[in-house]
Amino acid sequence: MENFSWLAAFKEIGAKLRSEMDELFKGKGYGKPLGKGAGGDTTLVLDRKAEDAIIQILERLYADGQQFTFISEEIGEKNFGREDAVILADPIDGSNNAKYGIPFFSTALVMASGRKLSDVVLGYIINIGTGDEFWAIKGAGAFKNGIRITASDRTDLGMVNIEAASPGRDLQKAMPLLSCARKVRCLGSTALDLACLAAGATDAVIVPSASRSFDFSAGWLIVKEAGGVVADLSGNPLDNIPLGLERTTPFIGASNKTVLEKALHALGGCS
Amino acid sequence: MENFSWLAAFKEIGAKLRSEMDELFKGKGYGKPLGKGAGGDTTLVLDRKAEDAIIQILERLYADGQQFTFISEEIGEKNFGREDAVILADPIDGSNNAKYGIPFFSTALVMASGRKLSDVVLGYIINIGTGDEFWAIKGAGAFKNGIRITASDRTDLGMVNIEAASPGRDLQKAMPLLSCARKVRCLGSTALDLACLAAGATDAVIVPSASRSFDFSAGWLIVKEAGGVVADLSGNPLDNIPLGLERTTPFIGASNKTVLEKALHALGGCS
Repeated sequence: MENFSWLAAFKEIGAKLRSEMDELFKGKGYGKPLGKGAGGDTTLVLDRKAEDAIIQILERLYADGQQFTFISEEIGEKNFGREDAVILADPIDGSNNAKYGIPFFSTALVMASGRKLSDVVLGYIINIGTGDEFWAIKGAGAFKNGIRITASDRTDLGMVNIEAASPGRDLQKAMPLLSCARKVRCLGSTALDLACLAAGATDAVIVPSASRSFDFSAGWLIVKEAGGVVADLSGNPLDNIPLGLERTTPFIGASNKTVLEKALHALGGCS
Repeated sequence: MENFSWLAAFKEIGAKLRSEMDELFKGKGYGKPLGKGAGGDTTLVLDRKAEDAIIQILERLYADGQQFTFISEEIGEKNFGREDAVILADPIDGSNNAKYGIPFFSTALVMASGRKLSDVVLGYIINIGTGDEFWAIKGAGAFKNGIRITASDRTDLGMVNIEAASPGRDLQKAMPLLSCARKVRCLGSTALDLACLAAGATDAVIVPSASRSFDFSAGWLIVKEAGGVVADLSGNPLDNIPLGLERTTPFIGASNKTVLEKALHALGGCS
């Protein structure tokens, strides 16, 4: 099955999730999207529902003869006949936003020919709230809603996004960089941070805590194909990061090498 | 003209802005929504276009016999025949998001019977990206898409939003509170922060720099009518804040009095 067929499958999954998630949120107070259960339960229902929708479509593809291995947050790893074609999913990236009811979360999907980040050949992200789709195919560029996108050629730390899994620790760690930025956002979806970076909306993204590859692998390819860069906090590329469920590395994404260097330098204090 | 007619007018303005803004963003890289002009110019085009759309509808209402005074960011103050009915507009709240291309910005509109915050009788906010509408009529409750909403009855600092006009100064000022929160978001639209708070999505909002009343007056009424509280950083109510263009006061919004007290206390260090 070639890349463009997987893109079609991912777009089908995106459309299905968007319509189902919309239904869940329709007309309800944002904070109680799925009833009055405890926070944890609410997330589980939402994440599980999203993953189930993905698996339904993957099972149909498998029945039609496609073979692959599926890796996702709830189900872990599931073999659909083949190990060298990996489908990696983050059913809801921005679960806390979805749980609390902030309309800024996404679904991220990846197809890879192996188990390292550099094996990713297709990355797909859909903003569930707006329906915007971002994707990239290795060597063939990055797209938003079918139109080619490129990262910004600005060279300043204008708009910088941070993901703060633990606010006290992560904000403090990133503060030297955040203090140098003209504007800071903390939006709660790593995949959408990287999509915004790839589309030229933002200048840099910092994730100070070790992140999981399914959070950033789709965005990693989309940023790279849009001309941006992603590196660990020492400036090294992430190519050899394993694809899987474990937490791997903190990272910085930047619209270009100049901004990456400024961001890394700023982490040691504004220049 | 009674309150419910103004609500209909505000909803008409919201629908018009949403369709026009959607058109501007359609198919373009987020970062270049209105061409390649400098940052300031781009904002001006967007803000001006939004304000023009509002004025068009207000001029029709005036021609039909309605009288009021209009106050808005670009035009300043314009008398449409009467001083004791004030229409206050923030054509684009979250201009930087709109300019850079982060799909999280809104339009906020207010009808007031005088020049103080406590004179606000109708507040309306529309999320331009998702189309969600929030409104409140004094004494008659708060609504999202026509359905009654209430602020959360949680009593912890779970999800706390901050607006950081100047990241270095404002994040540092709020850090004692942010460090106590389970999750932090910095979304870039004060009006939507307050709408999310009113709808039960978040627990508190802090705006550490003096803000302008057209940024928060619609959200202030919506939060209050949803059962939440808004106060300055000493815990005093904002009722006597003048409605106008000048910067007035930093503030904290909270889902209830318990959370407000915890937030004010946390500003002096986590308990």
